[in-house]
Amino acid sequence: MTDAEARLIEQARDKLGPKAVVTDPREIEPWVTDWRGRVHGAAPAILAPVSTDEVAEIVRLAAEHRVPLVPQGGNTGMAAGATPPADGSAILLSMRRMNRIRSVSAENRLVVAEAGVVLATLHDAAHEVGMRFPLTLGARGSCTIGGLTSTNAGGTQVLKFGTMRSLVGGVEAVLPDGSVHSGLSGLKKDNRGYSLDQLLIGAEGTLGVITAVALRLVPAIAARAVAWAGVESPMRALEMLRFLEARTASIEGFELVPQDSLELVLKHIPDTRAPLSGEHRWHVLIEATAVDSATDITAELQRLLEAALQQGIISDAVLAASEGQAEAFWKLRDSISEAERAEGQTLAHDISVPVADMPRFIIDAAAKVERAFPGVVATGFGHLGDGNIHFHVRAGSHAAPGWYDTEGEKITRFVDDLVTAAGGSISAEHGIGQLKREELARLAPPGRIHALRAIKHALDPLGIMNPGKLVP
Amino acid sequence: MTDAEARLIEQARDKLGPKAVVTDPREIEPWVTDWRGRVHGAAPAILAPVSTDEVAEIVRLAAEHRVPLVPQGGNTGMAAGATPPADGSAILLSMRRMNRIRSVSAENRLVVAEAGVVLATLHDAAHEVGMRFPLTLGARGSCTIGGLTSTNAGGTQVLKFGTMRSLVGGVEAVLPDGSVHSGLSGLKKDNRGYSLDQLLIGAEGTLGVITAVALRLVPAIAARAVAWAGVESPMRALEMLRFLEARTASIEGFELVPQDSLELVLKHIPDTRAPLSGEHRWHVLIEATAVDSATDITAELQRLLEAALQQGIISDAVLAASEGQAEAFWKLRDSISEAERAEGQTLAHDISVPVADMPRFIIDAAAKVERAFPGVVATGFGHLGDGNIHFHVRAGSHAAPGWYDTEGEKITRFVDDLVTAAGGSISAEHGIGQLKREELARLAPPGRIHALRAIKHALDPLGIMNPGKLVP
Repeated sequence: MTDAEARLIEQARDKLGPKAVVTDPREIEPWVTDWRGRVHGAAPAILAPVSTDEVAEIVRLAAEHRVPLVPQGGNTGMAAGATPPADGSAILLSMRRMNRIRSVSAENRLVVAEAGVVLATLHDAAHEVGMRFPLTLGARGSCTIGGLTSTNAGGTQVLKFGTMRSLVGGVEAVLPDGSVHSGLSGLKKDNRGYSLDQLLIGAEGTLGVITAVALRLVPAIAARAVAWAGVESPMRALEMLRFLEARTASIEGFELVPQDSLELVLKHIPDTRAPLSGEHRWHVLIEATAVDSATDITAELQRLLEAALQQGIISDAVLAASEGQAEAFWKLRDSISEAERAEGQTLAHDISVPVADMPRFIIDAAAKVERAFPGVVATGFGHLGDGNIHFHVRAGSHAAPGWYDTEGEKITRFVDDLVTAAGGSISAEHGIGQLKREELARLAPPGRIHALRAIKHALDPLGIMNPGKLVP
Repeated sequence: MTDAEARLIEQARDKLGPKAVVTDPREIEPWVTDWRGRVHGAAPAILAPVSTDEVAEIVRLAAEHRVPLVPQGGNTGMAAGATPPADGSAILLSMRRMNRIRSVSAENRLVVAEAGVVLATLHDAAHEVGMRFPLTLGARGSCTIGGLTSTNAGGTQVLKFGTMRSLVGGVEAVLPDGSVHSGLSGLKKDNRGYSLDQLLIGAEGTLGVITAVALRLVPAIAARAVAWAGVESPMRALEMLRFLEARTASIEGFELVPQDSLELVLKHIPDTRAPLSGEHRWHVLIEATAVDSATDITAELQRLLEAALQQGIISDAVLAASEGQAEAFWKLRDSISEAERAEGQTLAHDISVPVADMPRFIIDAAAKVERAFPGVVATGFGHLGDGNIHFHVRAGSHAAPGWYDTEGEKITRFVDDLVTAAGGSISAEHGIGQLKREELARLAPPGRIHALRAIKHALDPLGIMNPGKLVP
């Protein structure tokens, strides 16, 4: 611990009380390693404020003592964006105690939640007033609103409702100079200069600390219908999505699953079974929802599936006969990463290309990777309708300790080059954090890197906000 | 003309050819006064590039010679954001010749249009592929995509589809250092650092020149139904909107019109007549649309109007019996500003407050203004569902030459103070430009002003992009 850190910690204890300051290494330990276990950091303390004023106080102390802060919510990030540097030169700023829902209104279709509110808690709060916050993802029981906003998180319902960027109605944040940006008015229209809200969304805590967010609510679901269909190819899968979209506005989930991934799930995850009896090279999970109980959404989806079957777009399909079966279908999709981990080492790439190009990209990129690195197995699964696929490469016949470290970086660079050549993004929804910073530096145009650095330096000239993240 | 300007103009003529350089004062004259005729500027030349490369060339010359550029599209802005300074110290950069539609795809639901494409032309291009670009406004025959994006324009269909910010899928722009930001990939998900796209939207050309924009398309309308209803108060109007929204997703226009405004339209605009026979203090114009021809949207709206009438939410209503009548209803709404101008001097305020607070705000603010400035007439009309009202103050019994200049500023400050006290915005959709810059400086929190200035200086350290606009 440096002298500056020691002084900051002491002053924080004086001003915020002992509860807001954690220095016991055993209490700190769980929070300095990233969720995927890839990056191990260190921090002499965790500061845990309960109010925006306390956050502002901490930011002012950090500026005074030139000690950087690393904001953290549920520590469920996929790019180690909330993991402190290994040399202990920064202090963790945990937002978990700022966990109040300040207001929720069905009439205004708006909820104002503090940064530390867990996503599942927000879902419940919306549900209680007959509304719904549509964004959801696997880590919903731990991830927080501040982190979701700071990473512009996506998930499985983006098709209809967009990422966090389109659901955020306003942001409250403490800027690096200690001033509070108050964007929570809930105004639907406001053209008073550059949008600081939009700049803070996806900034991964490098431009300030998000303390609260106004979020849009949508009407609660009256009913849902979930189906599983077999298709010949990713091209057919996209054709199916277009077929559905042309006929209904009710589709909100559309996930692509390759046969290979399904087989791994059936092999490693207990209590799972294949939804269809025949063999299919690709599958899609389809969810349709209705907000009014008058609509028979199951009948509607059934009709559409039959028509698609008749036209040869899909090879087979089954509708979940119960909520339990619907959950079982989703479990197959949600267990892919876990099944892959059980099978062995897997390199994950969260990529996007234009939607129309994605089916071809999946096929071509997998073939190219398997050709360049004989023995590995490459597949893409996930959010086809968003042009966002989790492109995973398994060790396959290379399976040996250390494969990840020896060949991993080479394969990732190979994949990122393919994505860049296709006009895509090497980070569709997970962000840059620490893990993709070098690749961003390698692949982004110089003008863009210059702009990112200029903005960072303009708003955080002392470099106290989440150093070593996002900006190349 | 300064020496630096002369050198820049000469080099531009060399590099881009004579067609791209206009120096005849008679050709320049129409473009140096703002659309509302409030601000008169001057410029020694208009540069009119035809490609992104040419824009980059011009920006590099501007940087080299330290001569600022004022980007301009259709010159239809409401805040004089595209009007050059009066001392002739800047050169106009007209984007009107960059008017190609680069691509339009129904499958990808995306159109890529250059900055100088006129909105009406874009509407036609979308229509030709069976799609629709939903944003529209009065100036659609002249305003351009670059200007609409740079001002985050709104209009009458924001209720369902949002402002430009939510319709833009990507931005191509020349940054002040002459580099090209290419955000036109059409990716639905991309988390590679700060969103330059979102920063450029609404930046009014102060951070770079938008050269092309990718815009989202929505399915074309199969049918629309337009109704006019009388209501007792703005509160009842909002109640009506909520009533409709709870029962259908088809409402996309909902405009509030006070009786006073309607009377002015009937008095000054030829070929207009009141839709309803009785007297009503307030009116709403309602538009519902259907994208499939199976839905009988007229019957649906009829049923909803009858139910609302029965519940006493509205006092009377009439459905347009033909497309001609629908147009006539919209003409009543769209002619309010023109009718006001015909009546005499009018101060316009484009303001927003939270939607739920707007009905009360209209009543209270009008009463306060009329009490503080006896003799004037204050009314609010427009986009009630967005919390965005055009709050206009007429000279009334003060009508005399010079009223606008003598009392105008005082009244505007009074209105802006009321809006700020209500947590609202002094610019909902028109932007800051030159006309609202002083008020922004007076009313914005110091931290926000600091952040705007820091961002501006970081990306445009030489101050060559649209000086004297937006940033206080």
